[in-house]
Amino acid sequence: MPETPPSETAKRYEGKAKILYATEDESVLLTVFKDDATAFNALKRGQITGKGQMNCTIAAALFKYLATQGIPTHFITQTAPDQMTVKALQIIPVEVVVRNIAAGSLCRQTGLELGTILPQPLVEFYYKNDDLQDPLLTRDRLLLLNLATPSQVEELAQMALQINQYLTTFFKRCNVTLVDFKLEFGLDPQGMLYLADEISPDTCRLWDDSETDPERRVMDKDRFRQDLGGVAAAYQTVQERVLQAIAQFS
Amino acid sequence: MPETPPSETAKRYEGKAKILYATEDESVLLTVFKDDATAFNALKRGQITGKGQMNCTIAAALFKYLATQGIPTHFITQTAPDQMTVKALQIIPVEVVVRNIAAGSLCRQTGLELGTILPQPLVEFYYKNDDLQDPLLTRDRLLLLNLATPSQVEELAQMALQINQYLTTFFKRCNVTLVDFKLEFGLDPQGMLYLADEISPDTCRLWDDSETDPERRVMDKDRFRQDLGGVAAAYQTVQERVLQAIAQFS
Repeated sequence: MPETPPSETAKRYEGKAKILYATEDESVLLTVFKDDATAFNALKRGQITGKGQMNCTIAAALFKYLATQGIPTHFITQTAPDQMTVKALQIIPVEVVVRNIAAGSLCRQTGLELGTILPQPLVEFYYKNDDLQDPLLTRDRLLLLNLATPSQVEELAQMALQINQYLTTFFKRCNVTLVDFKLEFGLDPQGMLYLADEISPDTCRLWDDSETDPERRVMDKDRFRQDLGGVAAAYQTVQERVLQAIAQFS
Repeated sequence: MPETPPSETAKRYEGKAKILYATEDESVLLTVFKDDATAFNALKRGQITGKGQMNCTIAAALFKYLATQGIPTHFITQTAPDQMTVKALQIIPVEVVVRNIAAGSLCRQTGLELGTILPQPLVEFYYKNDDLQDPLLTRDRLLLLNLATPSQVEELAQMALQINQYLTTFFKRCNVTLVDFKLEFGLDPQGMLYLADEISPDTCRLWDDSETDPERRVMDKDRFRQDLGGVAAAYQTVQERVLQAIAQFS
């Protein structure tokens, strides 16, 4: 069972999959991961039993791994199965997506076939704005909206590509292909950029290398989006493989 | 009345607003402008009486004006009120949009308020693909889909910005603000880039400088899209002012 969450009075922000609480240290927030699942801009809603704990555990492991590779992350420590403390940051309202293989909206919007291996990783920016349904941003639109400075945009893209290299290598050890994933970043009071949010089967497309069937191979939230069944079991497998890889290589 | 169009056997392409016919010279096509109007990816359909003739006349005038400024265009000559001959080109399946003031999908997708003056003209690319509903393209997606080469993308953007300067100046003489517009380009057999398609109230947002009311000032297809009435009259006014400006300054 999840730990009792902090009192409502400390709640700072509630998103679709996580709640952020203030702590006694104003530079630290507590993140509680929920079992709630949403898709298609929250038009589809459900619960995935144990998701909060699994995603928290997977994200904690991946943040720790990335930190060993020199990536600054907001992660401090996992305080309960579904809870972690993180640095309080000013979140940049941009979702940075890295794509190695065509899937999801890239296919719908370009006509590229699902599974097309991209000649090089594609970094894309989306406006983190529920009312506007998280639209794709060109770099010009991102700058026009003052969501980040030109040098921050470059830094975001470079960090995202570096993280893609580390995560692709890591998931290969798990016998998993990292198809694409979404990152969020935040700035500390000194303006330093940190990886924030989470990295989990909610935010990555992960395909099992030991499966060739296009439905059976799916280990991520697409199982929920597409009603493929076995959602919790897939997340459980990802968690097991991630923890095993961490244990073997650390 | 429009001239009798050429025989069906010569039809090379029928779009929403124009039909292209082959001619005896394979390097030349005949374009016939239709009164048909569509909006919202052809979900809304209608007719605007006289539109074919007005758009053909406006486009012919603007193509001639741009040619005098050194812009290579596909226009050869207006052969009838609703017909013009043009160079046969390999059309690049990209719509190049230049925006001076926020309107339309830019507002819907970014939350910018209608009428926001942009700090500098915004050049955007859209995939000319009805099935995909002409989606916005980042430069990376445009290149990924091999719709143009990197140097062609640069050339498209530069030409579009230059055309924007010329057209903005021209429409100012007409007491009209050029809010935004869509261009298409094509390549001749030698790979030289030409401005193609049309420039008309179907493809531009034009606001009457002598009106401040946000509905009364609209002189373009938004009158049709938004059921503002007086569509043909607005096109007629644009045609009159364009021809007057051409007569005064040429």
